[in-house]
Amino acid sequence: MSVSLPSDFNRIAIIGVGLIGGSIARAVRTAALPTHIVAYDASDAVRARVRALGLADTVAETLPEAVSDADLVILCTPVGTFEAIARAMAPHLKPGAIVSDVGSTKGSAIAAMAPHCPAHCHLVPAHPVAGTENSGPDAGFATLFKGRWCIVTPPEGTDKTAVARVCAFWTALGSNVEVMDAQHHDRVLAVTSHIPHLIAYTIVGTASDLEQVTESEVIKFSAGGFRDFTRIAASDPTMWRDVFLNNREAVLEILQRFNEDLTALQRAIRWGDGDTLFNLFSRTRHIRRTIIDAGQDTPRPDFGREPATPSEAETK
Amino acid sequence: MSVSLPSDFNRIAIIGVGLIGGSIARAVRTAALPTHIVAYDASDAVRARVRALGLADTVAETLPEAVSDADLVILCTPVGTFEAIARAMAPHLKPGAIVSDVGSTKGSAIAAMAPHCPAHCHLVPAHPVAGTENSGPDAGFATLFKGRWCIVTPPEGTDKTAVARVCAFWTALGSNVEVMDAQHHDRVLAVTSHIPHLIAYTIVGTASDLEQVTESEVIKFSAGGFRDFTRIAASDPTMWRDVFLNNREAVLEILQRFNEDLTALQRAIRWGDGDTLFNLFSRTRHIRRTIIDAGQDTPRPDFGREPATPSEAETK
Repeated sequence: MSVSLPSDFNRIAIIGVGLIGGSIARAVRTAALPTHIVAYDASDAVRARVRALGLADTVAETLPEAVSDADLVILCTPVGTFEAIARAMAPHLKPGAIVSDVGSTKGSAIAAMAPHCPAHCHLVPAHPVAGTENSGPDAGFATLFKGRWCIVTPPEGTDKTAVARVCAFWTALGSNVEVMDAQHHDRVLAVTSHIPHLIAYTIVGTASDLEQVTESEVIKFSAGGFRDFTRIAASDPTMWRDVFLNNREAVLEILQRFNEDLTALQRAIRWGDGDTLFNLFSRTRHIRRTIIDAGQDTPRPDFGREPATPSEAETK
Repeated sequence: MSVSLPSDFNRIAIIGVGLIGGSIARAVRTAALPTHIVAYDASDAVRARVRALGLADTVAETLPEAVSDADLVILCTPVGTFEAIARAMAPHLKPGAIVSDVGSTKGSAIAAMAPHCPAHCHLVPAHPVAGTENSGPDAGFATLFKGRWCIVTPPEGTDKTAVARVCAFWTALGSNVEVMDAQHHDRVLAVTSHIPHLIAYTIVGTASDLEQVTESEVIKFSAGGFRDFTRIAASDPTMWRDVFLNNREAVLEILQRFNEDLTALQRAIRWGDGDTLFNLFSRTRHIRRTIIDAGQDTPRPDFGREPATPSEAETK
């Protein structure tokens, strides 16, 4: 999508300062946007930490205080909180304000926010496809969105200028931007994010429940592949619970396909059908190369985990 | 296991020079072991490449030439080749030679090699739990085994000195060494390596077969989790076909447990049971921390994929 507007918000309100909210604040500063940043978090401890880190120009003590006068309000809390927040902040939004979010499930995000969005405001949901396994305001960093995609999912009939302004904002933070409808977003993300997380959580749980293999053995010998899954399975539990509760249909649909494919491989293993295994294993190799060519992952073997410095190697 | 012997092989033969064989050769040099390295690979192209890289003191043109006079022979080829190689080299092994390997499945490795191992030799199978998604002699590097575990699985009654010498060799390459029986090894690795690979291959295959989500979309939005799986699913197809054909029982057993656990989560999603999801997602977090504390993975968020240098960031 081509975006001609520069990012032009005088005042943005970040509601919920975790990994994503904290990274937005840092990225706005690094991009030197002429924007006053107001941050609010329901947790006293997080607000204190945001103050200590100096992430915002203003740390608001209440939600109404945070959103009053904001040109752009971005909900960076788990999707399950969106309805309550949208309802509570509605009376305090100024005319022309844009309400956005960073939730991982867009159909449900719109369903939660749209009924409470005043007619004099614009609802422009967005989802930056970026993150790490860490949570909280300390986990954020300014380059998190750089070169990653941000998907913007305006409901039909949304003001085009409002959409373009949100796109320009994410472009200014270093993202590539794509606009699509919420339903398609939810199906795409079920494949590229939700099912991978569900599978990772499952296998890590399975491994820790075995009787014949101890947890100590699982940990010692995790370099054979398992440890890659534990990274994803260390992601924020509340956020991910809400993802699965809010993208149920697409997740169950893709999971059904995954189950069929896994059953076919299970059968190939049972019957010693090496060709079926080899054919799949050859086919999946090129996707990795394409992802690296697209700049969406590092080409360094093993994610560059080889100890980078002699001192780091020594501690292992 | 405490090992007091230093590594004391005058001449080792590396049969098959891919990622692991090539890394052993490099690690022997880096550790400055006083060992003559003979390398052999069935592929003309690989032998030429090994010569060009200078990985070995001698590049043998035939298997008999490679193993004659070797004190330690290490098979670094896919497990499916072990029986034919063990049979072909048997008449050429010198008395007292130790036959070892780096195969990922140990029960089948012993079954393939033991019947052909001369009485005047010692069979001491081993499995370094280390690797990357890359293959071939160029992919190897000297620090691959550093801080990783190598599991040694001698059949009952194996000469204790021979076992200790193999353990000392891997210790000299930087590995931690553990001795266990082959059957237990196969069950442990089914959990920590084989099932994770099978699942990764499956989901990458599923994603590329969908009608409603294009491969281009899968690639663009892979940073949401999917790309972690593609790394594993880029591993060598022949090697992994052989793993599954040779560890069938343990893989099918663990897969059954995984399926039960996934079905339970599927049901929790269908019925909106957030507590079940949250409880699992909280429980899996600590395993990640334990793996990092054990030095088996990097603590850097997102495996340290954040662009390391400004120039690397620019290319994205």
